[in-house]
Amino acid sequence: MQRILSAQLPAHVGATVRVAGWVHRRRLLKSVAFLIVRDATGLTQVVVAAPAVRAQVEALTEETVVEVVGTVVTNETAPAGVELTDPTVRPLGDAAVPPPFDLYRPVLAAGLSTQLDHAPTALRHPTRSASLRISAAAVAGFRATLDARGHTEIHTPKVVASSTESGANVFALDWFGRPAYLAQSPQFYKQLMVGVFERVYEVGPVFRAEPHDTARHLAQYTSLDVELGFVADHRDVMVVLRDTLAGMLDAVRERAGGALATLAVEAPEVPAEIPAVHFTEALEIAGAPADEPDLAPAHERALGEWARREHGSEFLFVTGYPMAKRPFYTHPDPARPAYSNGFDLLFRGLELVTGGQRLHRHADYLAALAARGEPVEPYAGYLDAFRHGMPPHGGFAIGLERFVARLTGAANVREVTAFPRDLHRLTP
Amino acid sequence: MQRILSAQLPAHVGATVRVAGWVHRRRLLKSVAFLIVRDATGLTQVVVAAPAVRAQVEALTEETVVEVVGTVVTNETAPAGVELTDPTVRPLGDAAVPPPFDLYRPVLAAGLSTQLDHAPTALRHPTRSASLRISAAAVAGFRATLDARGHTEIHTPKVVASSTESGANVFALDWFGRPAYLAQSPQFYKQLMVGVFERVYEVGPVFRAEPHDTARHLAQYTSLDVELGFVADHRDVMVVLRDTLAGMLDAVRERAGGALATLAVEAPEVPAEIPAVHFTEALEIAGAPADEPDLAPAHERALGEWARREHGSEFLFVTGYPMAKRPFYTHPDPARPAYSNGFDLLFRGLELVTGGQRLHRHADYLAALAARGEPVEPYAGYLDAFRHGMPPHGGFAIGLERFVARLTGAANVREVTAFPRDLHRLTP
Repeated sequence: MQRILSAQLPAHVGATVRVAGWVHRRRLLKSVAFLIVRDATGLTQVVVAAPAVRAQVEALTEETVVEVVGTVVTNETAPAGVELTDPTVRPLGDAAVPPPFDLYRPVLAAGLSTQLDHAPTALRHPTRSASLRISAAAVAGFRATLDARGHTEIHTPKVVASSTESGANVFALDWFGRPAYLAQSPQFYKQLMVGVFERVYEVGPVFRAEPHDTARHLAQYTSLDVELGFVADHRDVMVVLRDTLAGMLDAVRERAGGALATLAVEAPEVPAEIPAVHFTEALEIAGAPADEPDLAPAHERALGEWARREHGSEFLFVTGYPMAKRPFYTHPDPARPAYSNGFDLLFRGLELVTGGQRLHRHADYLAALAARGEPVEPYAGYLDAFRHGMPPHGGFAIGLERFVARLTGAANVREVTAFPRDLHRLTP
Repeated sequence: MQRILSAQLPAHVGATVRVAGWVHRRRLLKSVAFLIVRDATGLTQVVVAAPAVRAQVEALTEETVVEVVGTVVTNETAPAGVELTDPTVRPLGDAAVPPPFDLYRPVLAAGLSTQLDHAPTALRHPTRSASLRISAAAVAGFRATLDARGHTEIHTPKVVASSTESGANVFALDWFGRPAYLAQSPQFYKQLMVGVFERVYEVGPVFRAEPHDTARHLAQYTSLDVELGFVADHRDVMVVLRDTLAGMLDAVRERAGGALATLAVEAPEVPAEIPAVHFTEALEIAGAPADEPDLAPAHERALGEWARREHGSEFLFVTGYPMAKRPFYTHPDPARPAYSNGFDLLFRGLELVTGGQRLHRHADYLAALAARGEPVEPYAGYLDAFRHGMPPHGGFAIGLERFVARLTGAANVREVTAFPRDLHRLTP
């Protein structure tokens, strides 16, 4: 007999079916016992009346994997309006040791640290798995949007000979006796691949040896990287980012509607044109001194409120960040060279995406490194490609865990990461 | 004026258009000059008659990025039957240094080592980029097939506290002062996530400190990992693998037909049921001694020929490999415990995929490690999850680069990898 999923039960009323899953909960009343079985699609209520089966159910522990054969009967008070009666129950493995928290309660009562220590079981709680379903849907939307725009997916090295973003926060590695580093981003590689495909994207892990314990940093996270050539400037990149975000949120609504409902959150609409303010204007709006070189979290929150109030938008672009605060590969604003053609996208008053136009002339790279007093040598292999013809280009990177945390309202990115890695955590 | 791509030119005959791309080639005849511009979709032939423009074109170097405005005219001898006349030409950057090989020749004449040293430009050659387009299409097909079958995409740690597949061939890392390792596979994590989603997949980098220089090994490669729960045995996994391969090859045909044509290869049909032979039978077919513990490359080749001859199939499953040659998490064949519920898939006589049913009982893991004389401690965090209820499950892993190399007939996986990493190569 073919196994069916709990979500398919309403289509089988009157039939004898086989379901399988985890013992989610048991309710042992005097006259009858209820066995609730959880599978990938939801819950099945099994009504147990026969004394022999009841004895069997009484001995079952939560999380034991079982197979149940029974008759599908309508019952308005059961999950999805159906339940199984006259069951036979068969464990598919040994009796499970129940995890140190109750997975059947609506809220997972354990602290985050306990949840992370017991991630393989904590993730079975519907609130935790919902975040990961949203994450998967968002990535699917990311790819679909960019595929439709002619981007090619790439896979680039995660071990490199020299650090990319800066010398700090990099993990060192022994590579067959040579020093090497975990890649902090695919930045250089995606730029080089613009020379091959014009438009590319990559979904992959990046590594930051972040020495601080914060709610928004991970030592490994999933970066959604995009790069495209033949742009006029950063504004062409912002248009692609807008459409990509809209595609991600559409996919979340379409593919993870149940997960959104579980978490009682809604995916916001992305305006057809996201409002944009220049950095100098952003300082004014936030009430910050005009000589501030960057936006503090309080400034970002003030800007988020302003965008919602003035534009009805949860999203806001801040463009023209000072060159001094952007990486050396950033293209300056030709009209105001102290400011960049780089941008941040704020979502609900928090930085979600960083991007911009990059330098594309070899001589500009040499000048930019010299101006910062940085040596050329660590970047030589990368810069060399810019001698061989690179178009004006730009791109952006979205931190997947941060995106999902913002969307679901999670206070800590670790809540939306299956097996987070940080200063203290290397297991499970 | 909106830029159009070379592939769009036939729709604009008679119009003045703007194209942009790389100087692919120049042909300077007496009466006329031809400028061939390459973009992401192909080539544009530009006819240059005006002396001033000709002088400009004469000074251009190959790979310089240019923008051309001209009139679209039909010409049966031009690429795609159209060319641009009366052009104006504008470089979009500095004159390029031509790479150390001619990108306009049908075959890239440089040796593989030179190509890899100059990967950012070598990959611009249509034969090299075609392999990467096929790769992207194959991964898209992988995901689409599994999405449709209810699998959820996951992202798992690439840095782990203990080695996974075995103690050898592992890269050591300093993790905030603690020893750590690059993950050799997401094996344990995908198994744990079966406890959450039942069916999962991951596309991500894996790392093997492979000390040998071979044409089929990389120190980093892209692994397409699948795992599914509630299987009866390995045969349920083989069905999913068959459908996944068919979906990948369909996607290659649909999304990368041009790339297949460039390489003059065809994506093979996957039989509705791939023939399968037991390991003991495979030894017989290959003419190997009955006590051989594994299949040598010559045996695999013989089996590939047999599958083609007897079944008209480019694919062949070999099931029931001896337990002694499979990892400790492999499920034995209950009827013949010296043999496993593990399989390999051969494609054209070469191993392409490894998979099988895994152990799902905690006690079985302890027994398996004890039987091999291996300590439990390095695997404790992973094994602990099996106390909490895991269904019978199994899965497989496809090496992306190896798959594409087999498909395209590349002699070396490095030919189909953008920036390969191996014993000798850590750049670019």
